[in-house]
Amino acid sequence: MTAVYPGSFDPTTLGHLDIITRASAFADKLVVAVLNNSAKSALFTAEERVAHVKEVTSGIKNVSVESFEGLLVDFVKKQGAHCVIRGLRAVTDFEYEFQMALTNRSMKTDLETLFIPTSTQYLYLSSNIVREIARFGGNIDNMVPPQIKKYVIEKYK
Amino acid sequence: MTAVYPGSFDPTTLGHLDIITRASAFADKLVVAVLNNSAKSALFTAEERVAHVKEVTSGIKNVSVESFEGLLVDFVKKQGAHCVIRGLRAVTDFEYEFQMALTNRSMKTDLETLFIPTSTQYLYLSSNIVREIARFGGNIDNMVPPQIKKYVIEKYK
Amino acid sequence: MTAVYPGSFDPTTLGHLDIITRASAFADKLVVAVLNNSAKSALFTAEERVAHVKEVTSGIKNVSVESFEGLLVDFVKKQGAHCVIRGLRAVTDFEYEFQMALTNRSMKTDLETLFIPTSTQYLYLSSNIVREIARFGGNIDNMVPPQIKKYVIEKYK
Amino acid sequence: MTAVYPGSFDPTTLGHLDIITRASAFADKLVVAVLNNSAKSALFTAEERVAHVKEVTSGIKNVSVESFEGLLVDFVKKQGAHCVIRGLRAVTDFEYEFQMALTNRSMKTDLETLFIPTSTQYLYLSSNIVREIARFGGNIDNMVPPQIKKYVIEKYK
Amino acid sequence: MTAVYPGSFDPTTLGHLDIITRASAFADKLVVAVLNNSAKSALFTAEERVAHVKEVTSGIKNVSVESFEGLLVDFVKKQGAHCVIRGLRAVTDFEYEFQMALTNRSMKTDLETLFIPTSTQYLYLSSNIVREIARFGGNIDNMVPPQIKKYVIEKYK
Amino acid sequence: MTAVYPGSFDPTTLGHLDIITRASAFADKLVVAVLNNSAKSALFTAEERVAHVKEVTSGIKNVSVESFEGLLVDFVKKQGAHCVIRGLRAVTDFEYEFQMALTNRSMKTDLETLFIPTSTQYLYLSSNIVREIARFGGNIDNMVPPQIKKYVIEKYK
Repeated sequence: MTAVYPGSFDPTTLGHLDIITRASAFADKLVVAVLNNSAKSALFTAEERVAHVKEVTSGIKNVSVESFEGLLVDFVKKQGAHCVIRGLRAVTDFEYEFQMALTNRSMKTDLETLFIPTSTQYLYLSSNIVREIARFGGNIDNMVPPQIKKYVIEKYK
Repeated sequence: MTAVYPGSFDPTTLGHLDIITRASAFADKLVVAVLNNSAKSALFTAEERVAHVKEVTSGIKNVSVESFEGLLVDFVKKQGAHCVIRGLRAVTDFEYEFQMALTNRSMKTDLETLFIPTSTQYLYLSSNIVREIARFGGNIDNMVPPQIKKYVIEKYK
Repeated sequence: MTAVYPGSFDPTTLGHLDIITRASAFADKLVVAVLNNSAKSALFTAEERVAHVKEVTSGIKNVSVESFEGLLVDFVKKQGAHCVIRGLRAVTDFEYEFQMALTNRSMKTDLETLFIPTSTQYLYLSSNIVREIARFGGNIDNMVPPQIKKYVIEKYK
Repeated sequence: MTAVYPGSFDPTTLGHLDIITRASAFADKLVVAVLNNSAKSALFTAEERVAHVKEVTSGIKNVSVESFEGLLVDFVKKQGAHCVIRGLRAVTDFEYEFQMALTNRSMKTDLETLFIPTSTQYLYLSSNIVREIARFGGNIDNMVPPQIKKYVIEKYK
Repeated sequence: MTAVYPGSFDPTTLGHLDIITRASAFADKLVVAVLNNSAKSALFTAEERVAHVKEVTSGIKNVSVESFEGLLVDFVKKQGAHCVIRGLRAVTDFEYEFQMALTNRSMKTDLETLFIPTSTQYLYLSSNIVREIARFGGNIDNMVPPQIKKYVIEKYK
Repeated sequence: MTAVYPGSFDPTTLGHLDIITRASAFADKLVVAVLNNSAKSALFTAEERVAHVKEVTSGIKNVSVESFEGLLVDFVKKQGAHCVIRGLRAVTDFEYEFQMALTNRSMKTDLETLFIPTSTQYLYLSSNIVREIARFGGNIDNMVPPQIKKYVIEKYK
């Protein structure tokens, strides 16, 4: 099974890394797909974000990282994949994710979205919260890998 | 019973059309109320959206379409109506809709909001998702009436 | 529009009475349908519960009260009705109610379930909670009509 | 990837069959695990339920069916599997499923629970609802495979 | 502030102990109130459960443990307290707890229910799940204090 | 116990006042913390909002009002406090609040967030809704204290 794990990764958190590690254990091949969303102002460029995910997942053999624009279903097709992986933290997540999964299946009927429950220690974690805390100089040690921490702090200087 | 079905209809989806058809079957008169929200940038103008709803509901005798600005309760009063119809898709919808219904009743105590569960095949559907997919050239055949599809595609050319 | 308002009414609460009063204002005819569920041990018999609803709604002209067994859709058909009214208090309610509404529509496609948000002062209220409090001699004045209070207290003597 | 799909299957519904079909498309091997829960009175015996799932999945090569007692994690270990598949219908489902997934991971840290969103046409469906409707002679054609319908009707005669 | 922390504690979990420890840090006095619910068959008697909570909280000076029957509001009154503490794990919890808090305030208007979010590592945990796992000989080391583990295992022998 | 009640208070609503009044009854000292969020365009300046809360809480002795920028945990530390008070209205609130509470505890392990259920009559109420209604000249009498109403109307002239 080839699986695609899409997201913004702005920045990569320990929660993302947890999902990647766990998904790469049951998927034959895992493609991390970094969304290049020009409409949304990001902290890091798509190139930087791809580089970050590559850096923190360099030790996992069956993981590759790419950026994509446009519809996820088109990217998944191009990869010859049929499975999308999403981490779930909570109910609000779930509603939106459920809607996206059903929408994607309505456009590509053989596409499956597999939801993995976030590990309990990362349930509170999102890129959004990391940026918010880092912006005010808060401690993000338990939230992002050490390399990412360095890049985030640099950005907010 | 005269009922008001308010929304942005930007664009009209098959989900909207489903609610209108079903509500027109139990209401004596159904007024579709297209919100003219100057604060929010819309894909179609209020005039276009009114025309679209009129076009796709032209076969239903007891349905009329109007645009409104400002508070829904004021529009409902002007229509001499006491019932508002809202489609519900999911829990996140429900929370917001519940809050709006209670707020509207606090301003007009004889106003009832009647919630109808969306038909299962449209549970994933929203105008927002249609715009997002159309923007990237995705297929919206199962999401909007054929006429509306034409208008949406034209806009994104 | 003829509407059916089903429930156990064991006992009738002020929340039930609120929904009945409001629904009778927009429906032409409202049939309160008291579920006679032999599988579930009730505080009051179906006959008593029908009598209770009749007593507290005697002042509302377009309301009638009947008991039913079996499937709600069969009862609704027999009444020549197409609308079911349900009060909604909260998200847990909503999930279950949504499921029942979709199930009922799958069995009778022209059946609409209209959900009305419970008035804020009755959001916490259920027959279940009334029975629990009454069982321990707690005060149920703000929870049930005065006549019903009398019957409930008698039962728990 | 070997995946385990546990449940009561009392009876097997079209929703179960949908999940089995879809999961068997991405898993190398799918073991349907029928819970033999002596504490809960079931409509069909565990043997009957295993036979039912076998019958309706006989056309899918990589699916096997077994019954189990006790803890799911023990059964999964015995199968040499690391993945559990669960269908998700709604938020209430999600909460419970999330809790079970986290509990199971706390007992077996390399166990992943993969949630698949139920197809929209089966969102309202559960074995519970099928039994409830069948008990009163309602139509379950859109809810269970034809063979299962026969067995269910026989039981309620 | 004197606060009451009610529950069944059947058995005491590490989640309970976490709430007690944290609540005793901000309350002047914390009364753990063990519900003696004759209607519900418990694993341990109320006396045993009181003894268990006492044993695991013996190191916390401002905590006392008592059992109660009947309505919580009556017990709280007798203690001269105005605050009830409840741990929250998830949305389903929240709905029920919210309803109970509003009900209790409707019976005793100066009663406040303070909800504390469960620590992430105990989010999956409930007495119910502990009993279920212990019943089948599963490992409950990360779920209950060591003393409690001993008592639970003994019961299921 | 010193507790901090943070928020935007843009404007102060009767819901805010209800939480302040109730929290000041069980806290020894309550610090209302008005968020000065430069990133978000507010109706009133932070200075005005502090003045408003002071005006409507002038009769409550143990309440003080301050504005803060940056992270809540830093403000709480500076106050020598360990408890944060938050009102909860609904599930969507709850998810976000739960996430914030867990995030704050991950940065300051002795910080407790105590959630109080909003009184039923204010369940529908938010500053956001007040602004929306006032903008269109709707009646906000049941939503804000009389003094605040005056300031809000002036702003929208």
